[in-house]
Amino acid sequence: MRNLKITIQYNGSNYCGWQKQPDSLGIQGTIERAIYDITREEVKLTGSGRTDAGVHALGQVANFKLESAIPVDKIPNALNSKLPKDISVIDCIEVNDKFHSRYNAKGKTYRYLIHNSMYRSPIYKDISYHVKYELDFDKMVKESKHLIGTHDFKGFMSSGSSVKDTVREIYDIRLNKQEDLIVLEVEGNGFLYNMVRIIVGTLVDIGRGRINKSLKEIVESKSRSECGHTAPAHGLFLKKVDY
Amino acid sequence: MRNLKITIQYNGSNYCGWQKQPDSLGIQGTIERAIYDITREEVKLTGSGRTDAGVHALGQVANFKLESAIPVDKIPNALNSKLPKDISVIDCIEVNDKFHSRYNAKGKTYRYLIHNSMYRSPIYKDISYHVKYELDFDKMVKESKHLIGTHDFKGFMSSGSSVKDTVREIYDIRLNKQEDLIVLEVEGNGFLYNMVRIIVGTLVDIGRGRINKSLKEIVESKSRSECGHTAPAHGLFLKKVDY
Repeated sequence: MRNLKITIQYNGSNYCGWQKQPDSLGIQGTIERAIYDITREEVKLTGSGRTDAGVHALGQVANFKLESAIPVDKIPNALNSKLPKDISVIDCIEVNDKFHSRYNAKGKTYRYLIHNSMYRSPIYKDISYHVKYELDFDKMVKESKHLIGTHDFKGFMSSGSSVKDTVREIYDIRLNKQEDLIVLEVEGNGFLYNMVRIIVGTLVDIGRGRINKSLKEIVESKSRSECGHTAPAHGLFLKKVDY
Repeated sequence: MRNLKITIQYNGSNYCGWQKQPDSLGIQGTIERAIYDITREEVKLTGSGRTDAGVHALGQVANFKLESAIPVDKIPNALNSKLPKDISVIDCIEVNDKFHSRYNAKGKTYRYLIHNSMYRSPIYKDISYHVKYELDFDKMVKESKHLIGTHDFKGFMSSGSSVKDTVREIYDIRLNKQEDLIVLEVEGNGFLYNMVRIIVGTLVDIGRGRINKSLKEIVESKSRSECGHTAPAHGLFLKKVDY
């Protein structure tokens, strides 16, 4: 049996998230069904991590074991012919038997889009967070740099997560402004539940002047209540998983 | 009666284009109905130009005469509360009585998105042209510069147009590559029917190596058949109208 690693893009707007739910296939189940459609094999697809309802992906990674001898370079088009248009498999390679998408992930990059304009955008509405308040972009860039490095990000985690070790390393965080879009990209060895969305919400609150503390102090406080709001899911993209 | 100028963004995916059709309101009719909903006035909305079915706008301009005394700065939000989410009014100002969105337009800027990747994008599918072939981007940039200046663009017009004077001036054309997206922007004093889409199709054919002539010769030939294909509507955005 081969162990196959696929890279997936999706628009999460119409899904309950990566994971199957009792009444819904999720991205995972939708791809498993497409694999069944082309191979008649019931596989278990292991993702690098779950994404919540509404979250998108430019480079989600998953793996599965397959009997079928279908060549790897035929798999993306074969799957895409069965998948709905809001999911696309963009790569498939064979990996060694031990490879596990989640356990072997060494780092991830997320992108977050903020549409900063007085009025809603008909173009970016499903893929960005609409912030109508004026934002001090330079301050947001400056403050964001305090996140780089190894810190206890306990405050940047939604309650309900059972994770014990809340220390993570952020390798880099970049903010770019392109007209009325702010593109944030953050790269790290791992992220707590809702961590990126809380980082974005906190930076937006800093940019608006609703939070006046430095992000350095906020991280050090290890307190969820010192952070800002949780930015909505539909601005978030899982961009890349590193192994 | 005040003469009001509005700036509009829209995602054209679900519309027959700017103009009303016998069985469909179009963008124009949809906005006229929203104006009626808030003022009970049946206005005629004059656009800077029509956009075809599927074409989007980041800065379409239109004007209309209104009796109602509603303050201009209240108009965008009032209209947006009545408009579907794929149309957004982002500005409204009072202009002099003589102002006409079409006749007074001095120039326009269009944007065109090309998604250049082997596989379709679930994120950009409705707002970009998916080109799966490898493109020589540097050659496309170099060739595009031949379009700048005043030329007879007769070849870059779809048949069926009744326009006699086919001389237009292109002020600037810029191509940028951001990962797998090519963003083309072209600015000129006016554009013939389908001119931007034929420019894009020709540049794509040059980038693919299907056309080997220089764009200089192609322009000089004044022949539609020397140009490339007409790129699809859904990659095109009317970005800005200058007065």
